[in-house]
Amino acid sequence: MITIAIDAMGGDHGIKITVPAALLVLQKWENVKLILVGDEVALKQELSSRGALSHPRITIHHAAEVVEMDEAPAKALRGKKQSSMRLAINLVKDGVAGACVSAGNTGALMATAHYVLKTIPGIDRPAIIRSLPTLVENKNVIVLDLGASSDSSPENLYQFAVMGSVLASAHYNIEKPKVALLNIGVEEIKGNELVKAADKLFLQSQSFEYVGYVEGDAIFQGDVDVVVCDGFVGNVALKAMEGVIKLTLFYAKKAFMKNLFNKIAALIARPALKTLAATIDPGRHNGASLIGLKGIVIKSHGGANESAFTNAIYEAMLEVEKNVPQKIGEKVGLLLRDEHPTS
Amino acid sequence: MITIAIDAMGGDHGIKITVPAALLVLQKWENVKLILVGDEVALKQELSSRGALSHPRITIHHAAEVVEMDEAPAKALRGKKQSSMRLAINLVKDGVAGACVSAGNTGALMATAHYVLKTIPGIDRPAIIRSLPTLVENKNVIVLDLGASSDSSPENLYQFAVMGSVLASAHYNIEKPKVALLNIGVEEIKGNELVKAADKLFLQSQSFEYVGYVEGDAIFQGDVDVVVCDGFVGNVALKAMEGVIKLTLFYAKKAFMKNLFNKIAALIARPALKTLAATIDPGRHNGASLIGLKGIVIKSHGGANESAFTNAIYEAMLEVEKNVPQKIGEKVGLLLRDEHPTS
Repeated sequence: MITIAIDAMGGDHGIKITVPAALLVLQKWENVKLILVGDEVALKQELSSRGALSHPRITIHHAAEVVEMDEAPAKALRGKKQSSMRLAINLVKDGVAGACVSAGNTGALMATAHYVLKTIPGIDRPAIIRSLPTLVENKNVIVLDLGASSDSSPENLYQFAVMGSVLASAHYNIEKPKVALLNIGVEEIKGNELVKAADKLFLQSQSFEYVGYVEGDAIFQGDVDVVVCDGFVGNVALKAMEGVIKLTLFYAKKAFMKNLFNKIAALIARPALKTLAATIDPGRHNGASLIGLKGIVIKSHGGANESAFTNAIYEAMLEVEKNVPQKIGEKVGLLLRDEHPTS
Repeated sequence: MITIAIDAMGGDHGIKITVPAALLVLQKWENVKLILVGDEVALKQELSSRGALSHPRITIHHAAEVVEMDEAPAKALRGKKQSSMRLAINLVKDGVAGACVSAGNTGALMATAHYVLKTIPGIDRPAIIRSLPTLVENKNVIVLDLGASSDSSPENLYQFAVMGSVLASAHYNIEKPKVALLNIGVEEIKGNELVKAADKLFLQSQSFEYVGYVEGDAIFQGDVDVVVCDGFVGNVALKAMEGVIKLTLFYAKKAFMKNLFNKIAALIARPALKTLAATIDPGRHNGASLIGLKGIVIKSHGGANESAFTNAIYEAMLEVEKNVPQKIGEKVGLLLRDEHPTS
């Protein structure tokens, strides 16, 4: 039986999304117990209104405070020791839960998880990692760091590569995942000082198959399993992608509203368009991991809907089932000690 | 009368695209003359086959060499002094043409244009700049640097901001364009060392309205006129966007091919989908400027089709018409001398 702690108050919609998503998870999977961390009265009321007040696999863990979405991470860390986010992370630290899931303030979640759980020995900094779809069916690519930190060193990128390759192995059962460095060209002379120095380190690696540089558009090609970049670059790229998808959907709507014929066409095409939206919807790939910590923390998108938050919980279950924390801990520690000194 | 030099051999398709695009431009606009730079025999043959051998507004300028798409920039610069690319740029330097357009090797074009034309006094490095669509109708946003260099200094970013704001003024008749810095958050404490230092410089500027940080997804929001970033970040983000659009179109095709009903729906929806594709098609926004040089150089996408290459030529005409080189030269020089020492 897997136990997941849920920051029930987190996200743009709080318990209105986290509670129904939790119930959906319990209905879908038999082997999971959920601890809802948040305001006890509000949670009981919400569960009761859904006829699930005494669900045998739900526990409520009261939290008196909530981290606001725009609260400064340092302020949340110091000042909100009874927040639903903090207490959910504490449950992971204490071994009560195998993982926690939050749709709350990313910065606060990073800072708190880092402070409470600490990094795995051999890892200097945690990273935000997630998988993205590719042009190859059923093949995803894992990308990190997506903004846990900026101004990485070559050694940081090397550690990211090791972590990414361990996660790719665990997720996709690939023995030697192909790892690439994100760059602005594939030739040796291209790139900034950081990637050129990281390239030299990567070339020495025994623990993953380093395939060299990839450019931004090749992330989705499906040729590689892991793409490594600095958190600043990764965060900008990820958000630019989200922006482009929003732009595309906006213009799609406009194209279909242009005249009566197009409106009728839109009605007829709706099922196909829905399939498309579901495929490229970020919600389908919701659930970024904070990797490099001594515990599993999954970050859901703040605006996640019920189904997207369900995916984030499922990602947490998967990482618990696959023993990702231990595996990463052991492998990363060993690999880094064997291969390369940490910075 | 505007004269544009065209690197007729450049791009993935060479004269098969550049010649018909040139003829389309001449047909559309009366006030332009084109110099086709490339292999004389091949060009005459191509023009002849299109019944345009003696077009009064076409001149052929013979070039014995071609820069290959994958040739190292330094090698092209040193070894291909008779290339169509080099000779087209020379025509700009010599004042024979007001601008040149190439779909060739980006690195070689940058290196050659930089070497031949030199930067405007007060500008340390040229930048690649282009406009992108936004969520606001008929409002574009200008983004730079998209990869002319990597490892920028805060002073480089400041110069990019000045150039971008001058171009936005010229293109969109905005008196004080709103300039933003690309970052991974909008709070003051966010970002890497580079953007934090650049932010301090930008806050001192009198020459443009600095509106602070924007995140990757806000590029398309339509709130700002110019977005400034380091060339490494800009290039990765731009290519990631291209990758996402490709991914979206791929899944759209799959969604519409899923079953007979969807295939019929696709047929009916085709006009609306075509409108959409035309709007988000990178070809529609084809034509990046190499800005900061003492002459106009427009880079077309290597894989540009006829209509996209036509757009690139039109961009060159526009910059010549608006006297962008002089305007930028004067304004940038003055602004930088008044406001801030160059690095």
